[in-house]
Amino acid sequence: MQYAGPHSRKRDVYGVAVRLDPWFVTGLAEGEGCFCVSIAIRPKMKVGLEARPSFSLSLNERDRELLGDLQAYFECGWIRESRSDRTFKYEVRSVPELSDRIVPHFEAYPLRGYKARSFDGFARVCRMIEQGDHLERAGLIEIVDIAYETSLGKRRHDQADLLRALGEVKG
Amino acid sequence: MQYAGPHSRKRDVYGVAVRLDPWFVTGLAEGEGCFCVSIAIRPKMKVGLEARPSFSLSLNERDRELLGDLQAYFECGWIRESRSDRTFKYEVRSVPELSDRIVPHFEAYPLRGYKARSFDGFARVCRMIEQGDHLERAGLIEIVDIAYETSLGKRRHDQADLLRALGEVKG
Repeated sequence: MQYAGPHSRKRDVYGVAVRLDPWFVTGLAEGEGCFCVSIAIRPKMKVGLEARPSFSLSLNERDRELLGDLQAYFECGWIRESRSDRTFKYEVRSVPELSDRIVPHFEAYPLRGYKARSFDGFARVCRMIEQGDHLERAGLIEIVDIAYETSLGKRRHDQADLLRALGEVKG
Repeated sequence: MQYAGPHSRKRDVYGVAVRLDPWFVTGLAEGEGCFCVSIAIRPKMKVGLEARPSFSLSLNERDRELLGDLQAYFECGWIRESRSDRTFKYEVRSVPELSDRIVPHFEAYPLRGYKARSFDGFARVCRMIEQGDHLERAGLIEIVDIAYETSLGKRRHDQADLLRALGEVKG
């Protein structure tokens, strides 16, 4: 029997979906959220590297609606299915949205565990990219440093390879 | 370098650890919490089965202090290390503590996702055990039903085996 109880979206007496509590959002992100700065080697780009920050949160397919509530809470981002492991992922990649909506939320309702450290680095990287620091060699070196120091996601390249890629271009 | 920043326990100006926000606790549990009713076959017991509810929440060893905050929040339970996977687990097994502290929290600050369904079953089982229903055959059959319907943890036995164990004793 399909259970239509509490896991269906919570609505108020007017049928409007109830907004998530900000601290609930932080608690959920403490366990399931991911602050990531992916760094790709791009030989064709002037600086040789591209830094792309993202915030994501994956849940089992049964919690697809909860991700919708999260999207409604942040008023940005999208949700996509990962068929391989039957999860859905809420994700924000736009730097203006990260800077205007995601970062301020976690500054106002801070993480309490180890992930707070990743968030600190992530917030710094978002601010630097907003200022255009990622377009300069010195800025990119600092971003790579922060990303490696604060465990911002899985790394495809080791740090030395990235710095080597930077070294191959004129600063 | 050891990082002594946000992942160390948050303290107020008097050096007292800051209590977790109730909604943060629910958000964290939405992702990482586990409501479980383990059911063991006990041929020597009068009713043949033993039902033991527990609430637990496991985090990476880096978040050991956050589990301490959780323990302080609920004012019950204990924390133990799981060396095999480098996690720590916060756990409450006492039925009076589950009924007086854990269940009322999640009734006041309800889960929003699919886990709300497990919690509903869990709360019913705790109430039944408090009333002594688990000492009667009919009560135990209902507890087994609830545990299987609401996915209360991994099952060592299939439901038919448990009901068979119940059948072998006089009701």
